[in-house]
Amino acid sequence: MRPQVLITLDRNGAESLQEQIYQRIREQIVTGTLRAGASVPSSRLLATQLKVSRNSVIFGYERLINEGYLIARPMVGTFVADVLPDRDVGAEPIVAPEAEAADPRPAPIFTGRPHAILNNSNIPIDFWTQRTDPRAFPLKTWRRLVMQSLAAAGHNLTEYGDPCGLMPLRVEIAEHVGAARGLRVRPEQVVIVAGAQLALNLLLRLLASTGDEIAVENPCNQGAAYLFESHHMRLLPIAVDRAGIDATRLAASNARLAYLTPSHQFPMGATLSLERRKTIARWAQRTGAHIVEDDYDNEFRYDGSPLPAIAAMAPDHVIYLGTFSKSLGAGLRTGYAIFPEHLVDAAATAKALLDNGQVWLEQAALARFMQGGGFGRHLRRCQQHYYTRRNALIARLRERFGDVELMGADAGTHVAWKLPPSLAPAHNVKAIARTRNIAVYTVQSGGGHEYDGDAFESDWLLLGYASLSEEQIRAGIDRLAEVLALNDPISRNRTTLAPMEQRATSLPPS
Amino acid sequence: MRPQVLITLDRNGAESLQEQIYQRIREQIVTGTLRAGASVPSSRLLATQLKVSRNSVIFGYERLINEGYLIARPMVGTFVADVLPDRDVGAEPIVAPEAEAADPRPAPIFTGRPHAILNNSNIPIDFWTQRTDPRAFPLKTWRRLVMQSLAAAGHNLTEYGDPCGLMPLRVEIAEHVGAARGLRVRPEQVVIVAGAQLALNLLLRLLASTGDEIAVENPCNQGAAYLFESHHMRLLPIAVDRAGIDATRLAASNARLAYLTPSHQFPMGATLSLERRKTIARWAQRTGAHIVEDDYDNEFRYDGSPLPAIAAMAPDHVIYLGTFSKSLGAGLRTGYAIFPEHLVDAAATAKALLDNGQVWLEQAALARFMQGGGFGRHLRRCQQHYYTRRNALIARLRERFGDVELMGADAGTHVAWKLPPSLAPAHNVKAIARTRNIAVYTVQSGGGHEYDGDAFESDWLLLGYASLSEEQIRAGIDRLAEVLALNDPISRNRTTLAPMEQRATSLPPS
Repeated sequence: MRPQVLITLDRNGAESLQEQIYQRIREQIVTGTLRAGASVPSSRLLATQLKVSRNSVIFGYERLINEGYLIARPMVGTFVADVLPDRDVGAEPIVAPEAEAADPRPAPIFTGRPHAILNNSNIPIDFWTQRTDPRAFPLKTWRRLVMQSLAAAGHNLTEYGDPCGLMPLRVEIAEHVGAARGLRVRPEQVVIVAGAQLALNLLLRLLASTGDEIAVENPCNQGAAYLFESHHMRLLPIAVDRAGIDATRLAASNARLAYLTPSHQFPMGATLSLERRKTIARWAQRTGAHIVEDDYDNEFRYDGSPLPAIAAMAPDHVIYLGTFSKSLGAGLRTGYAIFPEHLVDAAATAKALLDNGQVWLEQAALARFMQGGGFGRHLRRCQQHYYTRRNALIARLRERFGDVELMGADAGTHVAWKLPPSLAPAHNVKAIARTRNIAVYTVQSGGGHEYDGDAFESDWLLLGYASLSEEQIRAGIDRLAEVLALNDPISRNRTTLAPMEQRATSLPPS
Repeated sequence: MRPQVLITLDRNGAESLQEQIYQRIREQIVTGTLRAGASVPSSRLLATQLKVSRNSVIFGYERLINEGYLIARPMVGTFVADVLPDRDVGAEPIVAPEAEAADPRPAPIFTGRPHAILNNSNIPIDFWTQRTDPRAFPLKTWRRLVMQSLAAAGHNLTEYGDPCGLMPLRVEIAEHVGAARGLRVRPEQVVIVAGAQLALNLLLRLLASTGDEIAVENPCNQGAAYLFESHHMRLLPIAVDRAGIDATRLAASNARLAYLTPSHQFPMGATLSLERRKTIARWAQRTGAHIVEDDYDNEFRYDGSPLPAIAAMAPDHVIYLGTFSKSLGAGLRTGYAIFPEHLVDAAATAKALLDNGQVWLEQAALARFMQGGGFGRHLRRCQQHYYTRRNALIARLRERFGDVELMGADAGTHVAWKLPPSLAPAHNVKAIARTRNIAVYTVQSGGGHEYDGDAFESDWLLLGYASLSEEQIRAGIDRLAEVLALNDPISRNRTTLAPMEQRATSLPPS
């Protein structure tokens, strides 16, 4: 008997189809309609039955798998888990209708979807896209800088600081972006923030109203896109290719605000070409539009010379975002936004109203690090590390998979790999890899989001390499090649592989 | 010749009158229409000339004085500064009209006024309202905790953490508020934030839309009120007396959101009575309203027993805010928001979209501090310190000024003092004190804001005492008594005082 799940979808409802699929199946599992061990239809079959896109089913299933309701057994099928997660099941009967009536609790008006930022997996070889190497962190130096800062703390621990940040750090950053990115800015234009995400919230306050249009790259950075969505802005997704966002389409649009990642497009990795940068700078100058230039990963460029920031071409039209999450560590939660002169005063007021300023100690230690030249030396060491790892990854991919088609390899800390038709779709590769303790990512699961279709979502895999040693990278690609060959019906009979549990132990420790 | 300033005001313009007064006078100074050393009219005179409230002129003047355009010489007059601040003057001629036309740069859509959070004064005896004692910070312990945390950092410096905060810290906080405030919460309800200001931004995303009404105390906390204003909410200011906000008026209102500071009303210091807490809790339960309970200063209660938090009475209707800015230091930028169960999921998503989480190191050190019991011991030490200082302040005020009328003395780290008619208005006392290197604050300059009138603004003075030694407190009140007596036409002839420069050196070092 073919496995079956009976679901009624509301195509005009507020909930997305994938959300409905997730909810309905979860309900049937929780209520026992679908019993432990029961098999659920393949995503292809259920998509056909429900007349929905396969991705809707895949995302619904992935969430159920991640939350422990379903178990995927590759090559066999997907099944209802024997041991259900008790959190949700237990929570179900608590709501007493009479209490509800006596005690009205309006639902939050916020609508937003969570973006992929936290990765708690214990997977030994994890090509996660948003992780740098903990071993590359200059811990000894940082301890010294923290100690020196604390020794000179004075009233800084007990007093509010300038909401725009510690001036010595702003001075260092203004110098740094001058030398590294050709930006000529006053320290007063630099606002220290707890990362690019907070900076986006800050600049939306200055520049965006509900219903405003904002141009975004497609696919784009989930954290940014979901934030814009949650503010009920109208998103205008513009396709990305190997030279970055389609600048001609952007320049022809009516958008007055655009969010771009020119150094290493997130998630695809493209570097925006010089020609397109010029087109975009001219467009902004002509129309008075503002560009949010999220210049993450500009520090890591391996091939070709770095291209000038758009902020250097149209300084009055660009809010430039930089982060220390990639160059030092995301746990420091320190980044900066550089505002054009005409926004500086409003930004200062809005920043104060947003968070009353940034933690002092990290700012103080970082200012010392930059002043002493240590930050520059650290950056050069990381560049060398990540360059070697990138090379190891590309070499091994070519060894095992032939002439692989990559994007974003000339910069940053992750690459996008276009899977050959025999291996696609990407979520399959991801699921199969997971069975061998390898984590690879689709656009969506890796922190990106694709609007209008699934060309990137189904064909491309994201591989972050900065946090893995060369040995781990090679072992990861080897295992991936093995398990994909095992999964390929043609080659399956040709290859003889030991059972995965035995082989797993022969891998180098992570 | 009477000093004169010719100003035309636009009473229908978007800019407030005080803003216009500030701008017009500043322009005249920058362009040289008002020359260095020129005297400007008294606030009373200019207010009469312009037919505006005297406060509008006072605030305009204060800003010009703070920014260095004007110099106040008490008992003599106010004058255009000899050396102008060069930042704004220099920036003036950069804008070339032709570039402006070719290069449209729309102004920011953000409208908000800056709140008083930063205090960079070098005034030796500063009764600033938002400062704790740097000498009370447990620096040695903190260094050890920071070192221990860094030694065990692992991947925490290089990885994103849970946007809602470090779980061990959330566990400790859940326990702490259970013991200290009677709140029974799961750690998952606790969200670590960079202070109460960020928490307000977070919960507005969950609960407020443009145009929504929000009830606030009157006078109220400037940082909160200005944030609500900047989101174009309709503020409903409700009067505060010695028992806190008028709960009957709140319960009769149509507001569905209220921002309260029950432990030590900011800025007046009232503790909300038990009866009123109950009224407010019942109101929220009956109407489904949400209360933002900013429980700052709950740690410092000197007289009477602590009252239960409103969150303990109506847990489903209260977002409870706590901060370590008062108990440890504002430079740590660490606080927490506790959400009712029905808001927990939305809060987690909104928090991630707001800032991707909080700096790791401070959270880790604080969790260790709380786990080891050190935080509790530190709190008790601070309570004793601040209690002694409060007593010194009250005793000296009584000695020098007789039976002073105070508010907010039984808790917190500042008191409000109702000036006798012979000394009022408060901004005069503030200005006169400043000439003797003593800083005291009006409601507005101390971080509060009064809507609909100036009863509190003109009659009450705010005195923060936590950061001053007992000697400094006594010396400060003594000097204040002397300079006010000097300023009092009746007593002037009776008192003989050494010139202030000579006396200043005889004070204990700050």
